[in-house]
Amino acid sequence: MKKLMNAVDDVLTESLRGFGRAHADIVEVSLDPMFVTRKGGAKKGKVALVSGGGSGHEPLHAGFVGHGMLDAACPGQVFTSPTPDQMLAAAEAVDGGAGVLFIVKNYAGDVMNFEMAAEMRGGDTATVLTNDDVAVESSTHSQGRRGVAGTIIVEKIVGAAAEAGASLADCAALGERVNATAGSMGIALSSCTVPAAGKPNFQLGADEMELGIGIHGEPGRQRTRMMPADKVAASLMEAICSDLKPAKGQDVLLLVNGMGGTPLLELYGMYDAAVREADHRGLTVARSLVGNYCTSLEMAGCSLTLVKLDAELMKLWDAPVHTAALRW
Amino acid sequence: MKKLMNAVDDVLTESLRGFGRAHADIVEVSLDPMFVTRKGGAKKGKVALVSGGGSGHEPLHAGFVGHGMLDAACPGQVFTSPTPDQMLAAAEAVDGGAGVLFIVKNYAGDVMNFEMAAEMRGGDTATVLTNDDVAVESSTHSQGRRGVAGTIIVEKIVGAAAEAGASLADCAALGERVNATAGSMGIALSSCTVPAAGKPNFQLGADEMELGIGIHGEPGRQRTRMMPADKVAASLMEAICSDLKPAKGQDVLLLVNGMGGTPLLELYGMYDAAVREADHRGLTVARSLVGNYCTSLEMAGCSLTLVKLDAELMKLWDAPVHTAALRW
Repeated sequence: MKKLMNAVDDVLTESLRGFGRAHADIVEVSLDPMFVTRKGGAKKGKVALVSGGGSGHEPLHAGFVGHGMLDAACPGQVFTSPTPDQMLAAAEAVDGGAGVLFIVKNYAGDVMNFEMAAEMRGGDTATVLTNDDVAVESSTHSQGRRGVAGTIIVEKIVGAAAEAGASLADCAALGERVNATAGSMGIALSSCTVPAAGKPNFQLGADEMELGIGIHGEPGRQRTRMMPADKVAASLMEAICSDLKPAKGQDVLLLVNGMGGTPLLELYGMYDAAVREADHRGLTVARSLVGNYCTSLEMAGCSLTLVKLDAELMKLWDAPVHTAALRW
Repeated sequence: MKKLMNAVDDVLTESLRGFGRAHADIVEVSLDPMFVTRKGGAKKGKVALVSGGGSGHEPLHAGFVGHGMLDAACPGQVFTSPTPDQMLAAAEAVDGGAGVLFIVKNYAGDVMNFEMAAEMRGGDTATVLTNDDVAVESSTHSQGRRGVAGTIIVEKIVGAAAEAGASLADCAALGERVNATAGSMGIALSSCTVPAAGKPNFQLGADEMELGIGIHGEPGRQRTRMMPADKVAASLMEAICSDLKPAKGQDVLLLVNGMGGTPLLELYGMYDAAVREADHRGLTVARSLVGNYCTSLEMAGCSLTLVKLDAELMKLWDAPVHTAALRW
């Protein structure tokens, strides 16, 4: 294992501390319990959005804390759920009196711990579960579909609504709506190594790729020989469109997300392939995002996410955002 | 070689086309000859900033085209200089009548071709050569020090000055000043593979790292056993500070740049190590940037850049910028 780190046990603490210092104008970091809040803490009268999950997917979620997106994020150890006490402390720190919305990727540990935190908090807490990964119905760490990069779109759009004063019930309903209209699927060209494990999560042959991979290296749909970018794009778009069934002319958001180890040169090539496939299917790519947003440590690969947009979602997507990883 | 691509010969064209489509609100892309300009082209009365170099370092340079930074970028093939005709066409497209400033990383091919383009253009063209890499005096592709991630700081700061109406001579002098006050050094944990070559640029053993690596995999100062992040940071900061000789209390900008294959989790850990080292040396880290900005395809590793800041440079750094890769 070759990593830029000191002791394995300190990886997360040191990284978060660095994150907090580098973005001291946007966030505040608590190291015990571990959570990240937007600078200035609770905004009175605003619904607070709290997300979280295992680390190793950076910039998800801490990179999306700030104006117009999340109020707080709870990072677990690498590929490990955060604990209810982190979630409670984070919710407490950003609770502005209008309720707290948990945005939770559908993995058993995350779901269980956020549920526990919600029960302990009581009445003014709601939860949106994301499960945008169309690859497999259930998986190593999830009952039902996994939540992946589509979660970012939920966080951005609901974040804009919350900033504009939407109620807890409206934020929760909007989150459900965005999740239901989002579909993702990913591929891996290489594995990744959890620092505490010290060896790759899984193995791929020199000419192999995995279609439908999970963001922790969970098995996907199929292991195949390497395919050209156009075939990868066609295969992912087919899987996503079979699920979302967008009409011709439908406005969509297209996210080409890097898994961490794939250079931008390739990601923009994949975007080119995906957008040609979308054109071919008669979709209108109205909004785009290309880069490393929901990663799997240093895994080489990418995922595509499509979200069906209407005028309301587009307006909320376009609303100002000021976080470490997304800013406009 | 495992890459998300179609035919090797089409990698750059497809990637640039994707880049242009994904960021159609910010840039325009010409594929023949290849160059990227800010949307809307020439700004009348404004000095035009044009940079360029081999591809494979994305987001450098096309990702920095836009308001407050570059007017145009010329991408060569991967790790290969762009040609004078690209530079001339790009300069022509953005020339607003106040002169054109070429910002050129110090590599023999880039220098020669930008010189040729400048000669062909004639009077109103000036050039800033960047050579911020303190690792080695001359290298495989350069006479004198190499230009690396410090180039981004030059582009941002001079871009702000040009946007504010600075003259060609003032922009050139400012660029020289920023370059002279910037120092960088990088390390690699892994090699990278140029698509047309199909095999890694160089080899590193399972427990080896290279200190002072160039962004094309050029040899650095020393090949060593893997070191903890704190030792890496101390070693890079020592090399940079020996060159820049910052006084105690000096305001600095600290850039922790990923080489492309290193996850953010590690880059923020490196930032934490670097900022502790800066504290220890009595420096004031007044501005920070962490992420993949000047990469070497999928190479694992990072570089540190320090720039000594004064009030003027800080103000120009803080000025609004709206590009694909840098926005505030």
